[in-house]
Amino acid sequence: MFNKISIIGCGLIGSSILRAIKQNSLAKTISVYDKSKDVLEFIKKENICDNVTNDPKIAVSESDLVIISTPLSSYKEVLLLIKNNFKKGAILTDTGSVKKEINKTIENLNLQNICWIASHPIAGTEESGPKAGFSELFKKRWCIVSPSKNAKKENIDKLKNFWESVGSKVKIMDFKEHDYILSLTSHLPHAVAYSIVRTAVRSDEKLKDEVIKYSAGGLRDFTRIASSDPVMWRDIFIDNSDNIIRAIDELLKNLEEFKKAVNEKNGDHLAKIFYSTKNIRKEIIKEGQDVDQPDFGRKKN
Amino acid sequence: MFNKISIIGCGLIGSSILRAIKQNSLAKTISVYDKSKDVLEFIKKENICDNVTNDPKIAVSESDLVIISTPLSSYKEVLLLIKNNFKKGAILTDTGSVKKEINKTIENLNLQNICWIASHPIAGTEESGPKAGFSELFKKRWCIVSPSKNAKKENIDKLKNFWESVGSKVKIMDFKEHDYILSLTSHLPHAVAYSIVRTAVRSDEKLKDEVIKYSAGGLRDFTRIASSDPVMWRDIFIDNSDNIIRAIDELLKNLEEFKKAVNEKNGDHLAKIFYSTKNIRKEIIKEGQDVDQPDFGRKKN
Repeated sequence: MFNKISIIGCGLIGSSILRAIKQNSLAKTISVYDKSKDVLEFIKKENICDNVTNDPKIAVSESDLVIISTPLSSYKEVLLLIKNNFKKGAILTDTGSVKKEINKTIENLNLQNICWIASHPIAGTEESGPKAGFSELFKKRWCIVSPSKNAKKENIDKLKNFWESVGSKVKIMDFKEHDYILSLTSHLPHAVAYSIVRTAVRSDEKLKDEVIKYSAGGLRDFTRIASSDPVMWRDIFIDNSDNIIRAIDELLKNLEEFKKAVNEKNGDHLAKIFYSTKNIRKEIIKEGQDVDQPDFGRKKN
Repeated sequence: MFNKISIIGCGLIGSSILRAIKQNSLAKTISVYDKSKDVLEFIKKENICDNVTNDPKIAVSESDLVIISTPLSSYKEVLLLIKNNFKKGAILTDTGSVKKEINKTIENLNLQNICWIASHPIAGTEESGPKAGFSELFKKRWCIVSPSKNAKKENIDKLKNFWESVGSKVKIMDFKEHDYILSLTSHLPHAVAYSIVRTAVRSDEKLKDEVIKYSAGGLRDFTRIASSDPVMWRDIFIDNSDNIIRAIDELLKNLEEFKKAVNEKNGDHLAKIFYSTKNIRKEIIKEGQDVDQPDFGRKKN
């Protein structure tokens, strides 16, 4: 339980955190800042927050836990505004998908008397904005917590408890490992989803309607991923460019190998590839990160 | 309404057709052949079929509509067995995902007195086998019907009505266009799904557990597609190799372009890509081929 929690940036993730804090009574006071008037109006109307403000300084003042939940590219701007207004000893965290650049920024700002512990809740939908938020978003999802060198154990435990209280499973991991693993499990799949949807549609402008019509054969699933928030993803690809380029290179090699097997009509090689990926899915289901329920290829109705 | 319908091969698709025929009373008699004893036992126990046989000749005898629903690589073997047992004037169709090789095979066999009209119901799940079948599988899904040159209009209409009776929307399309469009909407996405899952897992064997754990960030969705029936997909990639290689080449170009934008940290270019794919999804939802419901990144429970 915190005395005051501030949420800086109240889109899908920020507003879901807000709802989860409220639902689980994790703070006496909650303060929300967003730069968008519409977002602030919406949050006010929802009546789930004690203090809704367009001044980030007011939002963080006297706060024990400050959660930055803006796009990655806005972190620096926001931190410059609030850096002199932190309560002494406050915990500063975030919800960003890449950690390398954030850490550089925070190191350069040389913030005094605050405890920086990065967070990344691996949760979300392809929607964005505060209307899409809901308090159950983090339930049974992993949250990766990456403490800075000087973070006190007491504060790490507090933040861990916080995420567990909204339903997450917490894993402590260093920044670099986080950025590398996420480049494989999240950033590469998104890079590919965007590229494949463009390939299908650009190949033949005349056939665009047909491609859309028969998308249930597989393409459809990629368009869901490829319709996530563009600004968020632009920032991710820029901040984690090194890992992502390495992952794309590895994929290009795999695709060339696949193409070769298709070209040679090498059925044994192809079948071997298909069986190997079938087993990975079984492990993901066993780990509880997906459900063993057929879904691909048909409309829920 | 047909007097007798035969289903040759009774896996996910064949058994779903069987159930849909029964449910909608589309035949006086249904006969099912499968080469697997287990499949035949299962169908017998389900008590949804008048005649279950391990002799394909008996299955097709006196049948007005013969539906081949085996893997593509078994077509020739099956057709050689039954080619002298067709009823005069019977309609022969299938459910295969590629049409080029099938047509070659049928032309070479020079079948007399039958009317060949290919079908491709664009429906399925990532599961396989007759236990996974269900009568609603084709509801609101497209079925592409590709008549041979000599097919009578009367028979095309009959087959069209058949697919509509099990809930499908029917599109008449020539073989070549079918194979090209499906290479984009279905075969390329599958090729990529297999390759991306392998990339993520092979990159670093030590990190395999971590990759599986944090798969909800996007990879998870690809593993569903990448766990479809390996034999079916091996055959598809071999039969439609020309179109698929062209599609992979186009994707490789798009990925190189994407990589360049990431490497240059070109935010404007990246955002442009992301906005363009967001709109495609809107069109797919408008066309009724997916639902506007957030799903990515969280477990249904």
